[in-house]
Amino acid sequence: MKKLVSAVSGVLAGFLAATVFFADFTNIGSQSSAEDSTNKSNAEKVYVPFGKLDEYYLFASGGHSGQMFIYGVPSMRHIRTVPVFSPDSATGYGFDKHSKELMGDYTWGDLHHPAFSETNGDYDGKWLFATDVGNSRAAVMDLKTFTTKDIINVPNTSGPHCAAFVTENTEYMFLPTRFAVPIGREYASLDDYSQKYRGVMSAVTFDEKTEKLNIAYQVALPPWSYDLSDAGKKMSKDWAVMTTYNTEEATTNLEINASQADRDYIILFNWKELEKMVADGKYENITGQKMIFPEKQKGGIYLVPVAKSPHGVDVTPDGTRFIASGKLAPSMTVFSFEKAFEAIKNKDFAGDRNGIPILKYESVMEREVNPENALGPLHTQFDDKGMAYTTMFISSEIVKWDPNTGETLDRVPVQYSPGHSVAAEGDTVSPDGKYIIALNKIAKDSYLSVGPSHPESMQLIDLSGDKMEVIQSAPVNPEPHYAQMIKADKLNPLKIYPKEENRPDSVWKQEDTRIERKGNEVHVYGVALRSKFIFDAKAERPDVIEVNEGDKVFIHLTNIDLDQDITHGFAINSYNLNMEVQPGQTNTLEFVADKAGTYPLYCTNFCSALHQEMTGYFLVKPKK
Amino acid sequence: MKKLVSAVSGVLAGFLAATVFFADFTNIGSQSSAEDSTNKSNAEKVYVPFGKLDEYYLFASGGHSGQMFIYGVPSMRHIRTVPVFSPDSATGYGFDKHSKELMGDYTWGDLHHPAFSETNGDYDGKWLFATDVGNSRAAVMDLKTFTTKDIINVPNTSGPHCAAFVTENTEYMFLPTRFAVPIGREYASLDDYSQKYRGVMSAVTFDEKTEKLNIAYQVALPPWSYDLSDAGKKMSKDWAVMTTYNTEEATTNLEINASQADRDYIILFNWKELEKMVADGKYENITGQKMIFPEKQKGGIYLVPVAKSPHGVDVTPDGTRFIASGKLAPSMTVFSFEKAFEAIKNKDFAGDRNGIPILKYESVMEREVNPENALGPLHTQFDDKGMAYTTMFISSEIVKWDPNTGETLDRVPVQYSPGHSVAAEGDTVSPDGKYIIALNKIAKDSYLSVGPSHPESMQLIDLSGDKMEVIQSAPVNPEPHYAQMIKADKLNPLKIYPKEENRPDSVWKQEDTRIERKGNEVHVYGVALRSKFIFDAKAERPDVIEVNEGDKVFIHLTNIDLDQDITHGFAINSYNLNMEVQPGQTNTLEFVADKAGTYPLYCTNFCSALHQEMTGYFLVKPKK
Repeated sequence: MKKLVSAVSGVLAGFLAATVFFADFTNIGSQSSAEDSTNKSNAEKVYVPFGKLDEYYLFASGGHSGQMFIYGVPSMRHIRTVPVFSPDSATGYGFDKHSKELMGDYTWGDLHHPAFSETNGDYDGKWLFATDVGNSRAAVMDLKTFTTKDIINVPNTSGPHCAAFVTENTEYMFLPTRFAVPIGREYASLDDYSQKYRGVMSAVTFDEKTEKLNIAYQVALPPWSYDLSDAGKKMSKDWAVMTTYNTEEATTNLEINASQADRDYIILFNWKELEKMVADGKYENITGQKMIFPEKQKGGIYLVPVAKSPHGVDVTPDGTRFIASGKLAPSMTVFSFEKAFEAIKNKDFAGDRNGIPILKYESVMEREVNPENALGPLHTQFDDKGMAYTTMFISSEIVKWDPNTGETLDRVPVQYSPGHSVAAEGDTVSPDGKYIIALNKIAKDSYLSVGPSHPESMQLIDLSGDKMEVIQSAPVNPEPHYAQMIKADKLNPLKIYPKEENRPDSVWKQEDTRIERKGNEVHVYGVALRSKFIFDAKAERPDVIEVNEGDKVFIHLTNIDLDQDITHGFAINSYNLNMEVQPGQTNTLEFVADKAGTYPLYCTNFCSALHQEMTGYFLVKPKK
Repeated sequence: MKKLVSAVSGVLAGFLAATVFFADFTNIGSQSSAEDSTNKSNAEKVYVPFGKLDEYYLFASGGHSGQMFIYGVPSMRHIRTVPVFSPDSATGYGFDKHSKELMGDYTWGDLHHPAFSETNGDYDGKWLFATDVGNSRAAVMDLKTFTTKDIINVPNTSGPHCAAFVTENTEYMFLPTRFAVPIGREYASLDDYSQKYRGVMSAVTFDEKTEKLNIAYQVALPPWSYDLSDAGKKMSKDWAVMTTYNTEEATTNLEINASQADRDYIILFNWKELEKMVADGKYENITGQKMIFPEKQKGGIYLVPVAKSPHGVDVTPDGTRFIASGKLAPSMTVFSFEKAFEAIKNKDFAGDRNGIPILKYESVMEREVNPENALGPLHTQFDDKGMAYTTMFISSEIVKWDPNTGETLDRVPVQYSPGHSVAAEGDTVSPDGKYIIALNKIAKDSYLSVGPSHPESMQLIDLSGDKMEVIQSAPVNPEPHYAQMIKADKLNPLKIYPKEENRPDSVWKQEDTRIERKGNEVHVYGVALRSKFIFDAKAERPDVIEVNEGDKVFIHLTNIDLDQDITHGFAINSYNLNMEVQPGQTNTLEFVADKAGTYPLYCTNFCSALHQEMTGYFLVKPKK
């Protein structure tokens, strides 16, 4: 095996981890093309005046906020936070019955790595998938309504960090885990780590009709950490790749102990083969899931040695290569799918690890790329000419290079410590070029200080000139790990929710509003409109709900203002309840009236000149 | 009494409420001064390149998100969301022990109307106060750390919308309520509304030393809705003013029934007098609070008739006048404090309402201002020359006018339906001029669509030229109701938390880390540093915590990386727990280990090149 250039030893790694280097490339990137920059200043390039719209949507993962952040590009304005894994009182997410059920027992998540649905390897603008590293879940967002449609818990697994990347036609998203746990997650001593712990990868499908996620099968991988992944494209479309670290199987102090071996592995797997194994019954039932054990079922999974502790692995737009970034080495390594397929066909293996065949590094590797003094390569995106852009965490820059030759084409400093980057449709079969955004982990002095902890920072880089140029810096709440950038015209959001006469619990006419009592359950079928609530049009006070202490209350509310952007809120003062109803939407609050007394209710979302008058009372008669 | 020009009848009001008018003033505001605009495009005016910082902080209330939004001006970039009334997993707010206790039983709030602390009527950059209309609370944020320091529940009250505005030296903030409830909030029929319901105003003090809020006393006002308020300045500094609506005391369909009377009232009160009443024992004890009943204790409170259903009332920077905006009338009415004081001295009353003397409109009113076709005046701010800027909700514009003459000076359309506006230090004794921001309720087509419900919109207006000019539009999450804009150099945020050796539960040296068991309580005294957790340096695996099912666990974690912006997170996978520790900070998680099994723990806030390796395990041995 060829000796890797391993610039960073275990001890040095600790030092680098504690120190952020800031490269000085001020002479690079300041010149730009005649076409784009002689006429426009950077200020003008990013300015979107009223009456114009941004060209791209940016969907940035919200990390441990649990949410999805939507920005416009090139203005880099934050348009909306869409709640996914954490409650959000502004929209009533986690408060209304439907979203409360979606969230289950959890009140936060750690949202990593969003992925758009794809058709033929291109974004189709329909769905966005995301995973929760904090509580091991997956979610899907509808791009018509910008709302979360489904969340599933993923059993047997812990921390699906190495996700979500969908296959070319959204057949699957795969969720390999960052943390190994005992199969079934029972208690097991760390002394038994190599025997009892596994990293589990889940193959998740999405049914567009029912809008439900489902776990098709799982694969019990070795007890390593799986970091990032990408699906194959075109000639490699049946395959996917992912990076590993801690193949040392260390159980403590991973900073040092997981950085010992010179090499970790890329896992290369054929999901069509795995699918076939499942069809052929070649799995075991583990806590209700179909689990493939690769040491028993051969033929779907292979290992490719790679520079130690890689972070990203990214497939080129033409699907012929995959590029691994050596987090603790100065290298990007270009591998060839064709060579890998050939080696697999010829069984050209260098033994196995944990029952999985190892391909020879030399047989699959095409080129090692080491731009001078570039340190900490993490993640690679692509432009419309197939050129690669790799973020350098330690030297704080983005390096543009040619995967065909390894030649460094350009470098631009960013402020500071970029993790991922996202180019315009930059992980599809047809990237747009034009823009790339560095997702920087450290902002430090970039913005007005907000105390000891600063925001993260996203920097927009113009790719249209000869040289990359940072043209805008946008602060962002914690914490974008990856993002997706899509041409705005690929999305077609709803203007209002359709008036579905047969929707359960909806009321569309004021005269149909009513309050029904069934034992100690009270069902309110009400409407919201500018500028009042009507819960029972026939009552003396149509905007008052009176119940008895201890009643179970269901408030079904339909917004019958069928005008764009006329959203109503509904809150009961001091009852810790708020939800919204968007135009044409019906939502339900379900709760127990456990406090007697007088509680004003009101519209929380400013809706009209008489919004302040859109109130009523929730009266709870005390138990005798 | 002079007959008011009441352009909007009750029925017409309903129509206006349902229809948003968009005035066309495209010929106004397009010209700008030679000094500011011939050299700079609007794009350049708002562009803050890397290396430069914004000139102002904007603190915008987050409405029913419960949080505070921090923006930079003029870039209008969203820098940070600071959690106040709702949990925020990104920062661990509502998860760590301290903030969980602050929040009590509530998981959301409706944050309205922030107010900076003041010294001599000017922002002093130390504290920010805010109220929760949703669950009747008040909060204070520390501007050194951008964290919430205290939250209090305000008993006897419901919806402190008419707040928070502090007195000239932050002696008090007053919290009058939007909703009337029975004193003590017990159940009472709405048939008894006028007899049993009251709007209660609370006088809240803040102790800088203990960082605690306290209710000094309360005032039982008539059962009306109190909308907005302002403290007096200079010659009026002992006084405050607030608007009322629903002086009709309607109990249903307020859209119509609270818009019947031609006039509502401004309440004018002398807080020095009220303070004296309390000192003199002229109050009753109601559920533990000192409650003043103005019908019994005369001399502190007066009514001034005003155009129906006003929204804002704002004191001029020189403290001589207060300006009320007639939401359902086309008028801004300018009142004179001097005239009011004279009328009070002379007991020049027109009877009373609910035992409170009514000053004669003619005796106090100085001028009615009715800009042509300007509809829905809501709120007024001021510039450095004492000129007034009033938002027009219905005609969607800001009107600049001279309070000395009533002359309309300029108008600029905004998109769309502005509620409040905020000028640079525009509610102090010395406004800066320069900028005003319209806080618009409707964005509609202003930004890329995010579904049926659009963001709100904040528009930055340049005041430096001859004409007002909208120079930037920023989308914003629901929902800014009011904001404060402060010169950036007035704030002096902490760079890191000081290393306090004696702070309870802190550990500063790796060798002092330890896990202590007391019965079924487990106390972990750990540290976080790049790139590991150490819970017990002497253990075989210092980054592992092992407990028994059912144990009560306290994890005390100190971030000993004393470098700016190096924040660590701490989460336990699938245990629904996350918190952060900023540089030098100690935080505690307290929970019961109620699930046996194997749970990875990890750093959630990207901290270093080896952040991914900053992990460990939380092992919970099952009960036998």
